[in-house]
Amino acid sequence: MIEPSLDLYGEAYDAVDRSLEELLDETKVRYGMLVDRKGFVISHKEALWAPRPPAFDSVATLVAGNAAATSALANMLGETVFGEQVLQGEKGTLFVQSVGKDALLTLVFDSSVPLQRVRMYSKRTISKMLVHLDAVAAMPKVVLNQNFTDGANALVDDAFAGLGLNDL
Amino acid sequence: MIEPSLDLYGEAYDAVDRSLEELLDETKVRYGMLVDRKGFVISHKEALWAPRPPAFDSVATLVAGNAAATSALANMLGETVFGEQVLQGEKGTLFVQSVGKDALLTLVFDSSVPLQRVRMYSKRTISKMLVHLDAVAAMPKVVLNQNFTDGANALVDDAFAGLGLNDL
Repeated sequence: MIEPSLDLYGEAYDAVDRSLEELLDETKVRYGMLVDRKGFVISHKEALWAPRPPAFDSVATLVAGNAAATSALANMLGETVFGEQVLQGEKGTLFVQSVGKDALLTLVFDSSVPLQRVRMYSKRTISKMLVHLDAVAAMPKVVLNQNFTDGANALVDDAFAGLGLNDL
Repeated sequence: MIEPSLDLYGEAYDAVDRSLEELLDETKVRYGMLVDRKGFVISHKEALWAPRPPAFDSVATLVAGNAAATSALANMLGETVFGEQVLQGEKGTLFVQSVGKDALLTLVFDSSVPLQRVRMYSKRTISKMLVHLDAVAAMPKVVLNQNFTDGANALVDDAFAGLGLNDL
């Protein structure tokens, strides 16, 4: 099974979530998402005034797939990756920026919103997010070894024994 | 077999080719291509000062594939298509704009070239190109019917007979 390459919780999650919310308040962005490069939604926000958003998880999957697909094109042109993608439709814009090597900041906004403004504010948001993402990445992984498994099994057995359920 | 949806030749081809060349002269774009949405290169140019370009046909295939792939994303966000795509790398930019419904103007330029300038000039180039593409699309298709086939066969038979080769 594919697992997210980023696993955010607690304080780091709150901070990333708050940065995204601030970005939506400062700009007039309609929907904002932090997406794992594998296609998982890490955090998502919508502006209070925005109508019902599209399915965030489907958009996330397509955005991540598209980012992966363009990397062949990037390599062909001598780039390692396209750090920023602007997809311009008639009504609005889909703006995708790399956040470190594992995540993509994905914003949807109307044609009336100046791209330069969104770009400027999102750069600040990305550096804030990176502080937290890097801290999480630097944390030692929790490794559950045989001792832990044995101990946990013993505890469960004891608990069942205490309840008179160890024959189940 | 897949065939190009656009078939340019003669005057129309020359005019489209010239528009692309003018665009490269006016802006400091490194490589320019007009690509069929099916992935065929209709016309390509490179700036005189530019180093050896990447394989144009591979880039064209990837650009067309990418444009097709993003249409799912466009529909999900209520757009019919993303008419403009800007893929920004560290060194340069890949800029793709729709030319009518069948073609894509694809430009590669360095980070030093202002995107606004390229966008402005390319809009003019696209309207010039569309005049010729629309004229070609409006031309009646040449239909070779049974009469033509019979006539051609008779002519070939006569030619062979004239050469004393009709026993072959």
